[in-house]
Amino acid sequence: MTTLSPTPRSTVRRLGNRARTDRADLYAVLDAGLVCHLGVVLDGAPVVLPTGYGRLDDTLYLHGSTGAATLRAAARGESICVTVTHLDGIVHARAVFHFSMNYRSAVVHGVPRLVTDDDERLAGLRAITENLAPGSWDHAREPTRKELAATQVVALDLAEASVKMRTGPPVDDDEDVAAGAAWAGVLPVRTVHGTPEPCPLLPADVEVPGHVSGREAPGEGGQQAG
Amino acid sequence: MTTLSPTPRSTVRRLGNRARTDRADLYAVLDAGLVCHLGVVLDGAPVVLPTGYGRLDDTLYLHGSTGAATLRAAARGESICVTVTHLDGIVHARAVFHFSMNYRSAVVHGVPRLVTDDDERLAGLRAITENLAPGSWDHAREPTRKELAATQVVALDLAEASVKMRTGPPVDDDEDVAAGAAWAGVLPVRTVHGTPEPCPLLPADVEVPGHVSGREAPGEGGQQAG
Repeated sequence: MTTLSPTPRSTVRRLGNRARTDRADLYAVLDAGLVCHLGVVLDGAPVVLPTGYGRLDDTLYLHGSTGAATLRAAARGESICVTVTHLDGIVHARAVFHFSMNYRSAVVHGVPRLVTDDDERLAGLRAITENLAPGSWDHAREPTRKELAATQVVALDLAEASVKMRTGPPVDDDEDVAAGAAWAGVLPVRTVHGTPEPCPLLPADVEVPGHVSGREAPGEGGQQAG
Repeated sequence: MTTLSPTPRSTVRRLGNRARTDRADLYAVLDAGLVCHLGVVLDGAPVVLPTGYGRLDDTLYLHGSTGAATLRAAARGESICVTVTHLDGIVHARAVFHFSMNYRSAVVHGVPRLVTDDDERLAGLRAITENLAPGSWDHAREPTRKELAATQVVALDLAEASVKMRTGPPVDDDEDVAAGAAWAGVLPVRTVHGTPEPCPLLPADVEVPGHVSGREAPGEGGQQAG
């Protein structure tokens, strides 16, 4: 499957030209993110919480402990929504009415599944850890059986998902362009990494390993802001 | 009111030590953000969408047009949830089990109110625009009456809100600290601005105004990554 399968709720109703249907776009938006916003329904009202995640093929993995919300949804067969957003730029138009943002976002809907198979749980945890901190699973101590038993993992199928993007300069009215009374353009926004801060309990002579010091910023060419 | 008033759903149930109850913390987290994640319930299922926002005192303003979801909620008296998250660092622990993130997040619950007063609608739009792009409301062309009429604004009271933060180094088990087998520490994550990209339709001799070129990065000391 290389295209997304929009259902009514995952169809982008407004600004349809900003929707993308390529599955590669979905993977790219998800894989470039560190934090998703998880939506659940609690007593009829929406609750949105930030949490980490990881992707393996067409499955998204989440810690089941996130406010216990995903666990509850999995137990009850209730839908959740996972949204990942990257802000790429602030679009300054000549008119306040046309201000906008350049961004990429992915929205995934589905009923989560509690992962009960030990191998899949380990693979899901590895995906979550590696999405947050690539190279860390092999570097740090792996979970003990006791730790594993204390960790719930839920899986969300990526079957029902949509991707939206906006790129490029502002779109202004002709009269405002002709008037030339205001600056217009895009102020890019980027996520970068700072200088690693070693744990105070670490001996002073321990070097920062390459998977941390050499890590590329999400979606970027590896910039570091000191 | 200087403290937040948690209700059952806005009380931080897990990891209570990460919760903050000072109202100033709520303002700080909201004001440092550009994008919120708006949660609504649609046909019983949660939908989470990224959108801009602005704050005036104890009111959060959103564009009513966001997927028409907030308008629908306002019309029906249904709750929405608005969450703003800043990722500050990736916490590398000595054990996979203790990996974490440093972050600040605010979660606001409430029934939105459709803004019908023209003055408040203008003030709300100004707050949204200025949160996204400070200095732009006075620089760019103000909305015409026709544009204003086409713009819906909803207000959300900040009465029911919670703030969570995590800061500092990893918290590892003593045995893992003693073993010294892995690097541990925090890789800071920051949002920075790039070099402004003028609109191609702008004459080449138009300078980038100070409110764009001199803008400080959210929550930072004004770093620019070229």
